[in-house]
Amino acid sequence: MAEFQNDLLVHTARGEKCERSPVWVMRQAGRILPEYREVRKSLSGFKELVETPDLAAEVTVQPVDILGVDAAIIFSDILVIPEAMGLTYEMKEGFGPFFPRTIKGKADIDQLRTADGSELRYVYDAISETRKRLNGRVPVIGFAGAPFTILCYMIEGQGSKTFSNARRWLHSRPAESHQLLEMITESTINYLKLQVEAGVSLYQVFDSWAGVLSESLYREFCMPYLNRIAQEINEVPSIVFAKGAHFAMEDLMKSEFNAVGLDWTMKPEDMRQLDSEKVLQGNLDPCLLYANDDEIVNKTNEMLNSFSGGAHIANLGHGVYPDTEWQKVKLFIDTIKNSSN
Amino acid sequence: MAEFQNDLLVHTARGEKCERSPVWVMRQAGRILPEYREVRKSLSGFKELVETPDLAAEVTVQPVDILGVDAAIIFSDILVIPEAMGLTYEMKEGFGPFFPRTIKGKADIDQLRTADGSELRYVYDAISETRKRLNGRVPVIGFAGAPFTILCYMIEGQGSKTFSNARRWLHSRPAESHQLLEMITESTINYLKLQVEAGVSLYQVFDSWAGVLSESLYREFCMPYLNRIAQEINEVPSIVFAKGAHFAMEDLMKSEFNAVGLDWTMKPEDMRQLDSEKVLQGNLDPCLLYANDDEIVNKTNEMLNSFSGGAHIANLGHGVYPDTEWQKVKLFIDTIKNSSN
Repeated sequence: MAEFQNDLLVHTARGEKCERSPVWVMRQAGRILPEYREVRKSLSGFKELVETPDLAAEVTVQPVDILGVDAAIIFSDILVIPEAMGLTYEMKEGFGPFFPRTIKGKADIDQLRTADGSELRYVYDAISETRKRLNGRVPVIGFAGAPFTILCYMIEGQGSKTFSNARRWLHSRPAESHQLLEMITESTINYLKLQVEAGVSLYQVFDSWAGVLSESLYREFCMPYLNRIAQEINEVPSIVFAKGAHFAMEDLMKSEFNAVGLDWTMKPEDMRQLDSEKVLQGNLDPCLLYANDDEIVNKTNEMLNSFSGGAHIANLGHGVYPDTEWQKVKLFIDTIKNSSN
Repeated sequence: MAEFQNDLLVHTARGEKCERSPVWVMRQAGRILPEYREVRKSLSGFKELVETPDLAAEVTVQPVDILGVDAAIIFSDILVIPEAMGLTYEMKEGFGPFFPRTIKGKADIDQLRTADGSELRYVYDAISETRKRLNGRVPVIGFAGAPFTILCYMIEGQGSKTFSNARRWLHSRPAESHQLLEMITESTINYLKLQVEAGVSLYQVFDSWAGVLSESLYREFCMPYLNRIAQEINEVPSIVFAKGAHFAMEDLMKSEFNAVGLDWTMKPEDMRQLDSEKVLQGNLDPCLLYANDDEIVNKTNEMLNSFSGGAHIANLGHGVYPDTEWQKVKLFIDTIKNSSN
């Protein structure tokens, strides 16, 4: 008997040919859903939601019920890792993440701890609670930030257009950068292992700021750590998504991850040429969900065609924008569910 | 007799082989220089500097004197074009550009005018004054924003990580987007023609936000307008720099521009394979200028080698970051001047 009523995503992520592409959407649990905003408005802030397993499970399940996606992704944040290592984050309304303390030198790194994962019990509890509520309907996706992206936040303390401070570290303090990346990697492995134990059926590593690097920097400061994560956590399939990292796609396609996520600027046919067996994920431009319904259906079908010739997990090429109408997201999902391979 | 004592840049931009790569630096006139900050602090703001030809000429010449670059680039801003078309901009300290009024629909476009260029007399005066002060030492580079990048600002009213409103327009209001891009293109052509008359010896078009698009969007909403500019203004050599637009490089390499700028994520050898005759510009990661001196010299020489096999204008792969020590910039420039082809 199958573990899930709908196990399309797990099979596809393993490279098996299925009747259609499974679909989920980055940031599917969140502000696009009125039901999410309803839960959120009773709370003090974003972190209360992340840290309260019952509520996190509730919003994790919402897109399965409302949008009909083929998987839930646990509602959480990549910044729980720096916090578990000793740097507390805040989520400022209308601003984004903010770290009151940042890493300024070696002394700050030496004060950090490698997280053993036990600090993030609330995430595993939310995963267990989600599995209970889903009752075998669809699998749950776990996730973590890629070590470089986490380093960016630990050094910059907030978002940035260029992450020039983080990049300055790679160029001018390579040894300390590696020391920090090592610690983040170990922490992330411990964290993802416990996510798998708690019941995630696959996981994605988000390298959100990869695009500010270059081929040689990515090779030195990212690939070894990413590969170590993929090697260590191989009980369930894995997806890597390095937004904007066009220069790293050859390396990522050769990586140990089962699937490679593409943003909307990347061409699936180029990736199929590199490796026709690799599972690909993506990549509709989230801005297309602002278009009219006909355009959404047409462009979604075009996107599906562009991935033909290999296993494909349908998704957007970036997180859904918070001001997108949820009905448009549902149309995207329904279009994929009405297609066939 | 040569028009300039140092005409390396003009010759190289025309594709002629010279004894070494000429060098200039994006944002070379600006906050990295104490002499610039001295001029700036006596003024009410950035716009006063842009709009006062004597002062704009003074800061334009500073990097020629202090850093020894092979060309001056006129001190100005790409946002003078939306202003000439009817949308005033502000430059907010610590925030960046801001437009009190933005384009929200067709009615707003209909209220804009196509600039005939006469609105920007202060720029041409600054160019003439710069030429007078340089007295034939090096040429002056003119510039403008690419139509799509200007559209981004006119719609968003400020910087953005995703420019999702601008992209929403392309997807959901293609006809109005083209109408606006047409007007921006005509205005830009009028503006660049008058820059050439005033004495610039080449010009660069900055498509700063190109990277948020995709191959098909770039083909529809960018290339036709860029090519029209390059065709109309061909009395002097032209450079196009579309930061992050890895998906558009094939089209840009085939474009009518004499030279194509590369950011640090792009590989010169890939471009040489597309067209070994095209002049390339770039592309040191500006973060490398935070490294120690040996590293700067080594990486600059590596960068020069990576461009071998064709005409090359040395530059950074993005504007110099404002907190860079000017001595490091000078080391970059000196390293290039000490090299030979």
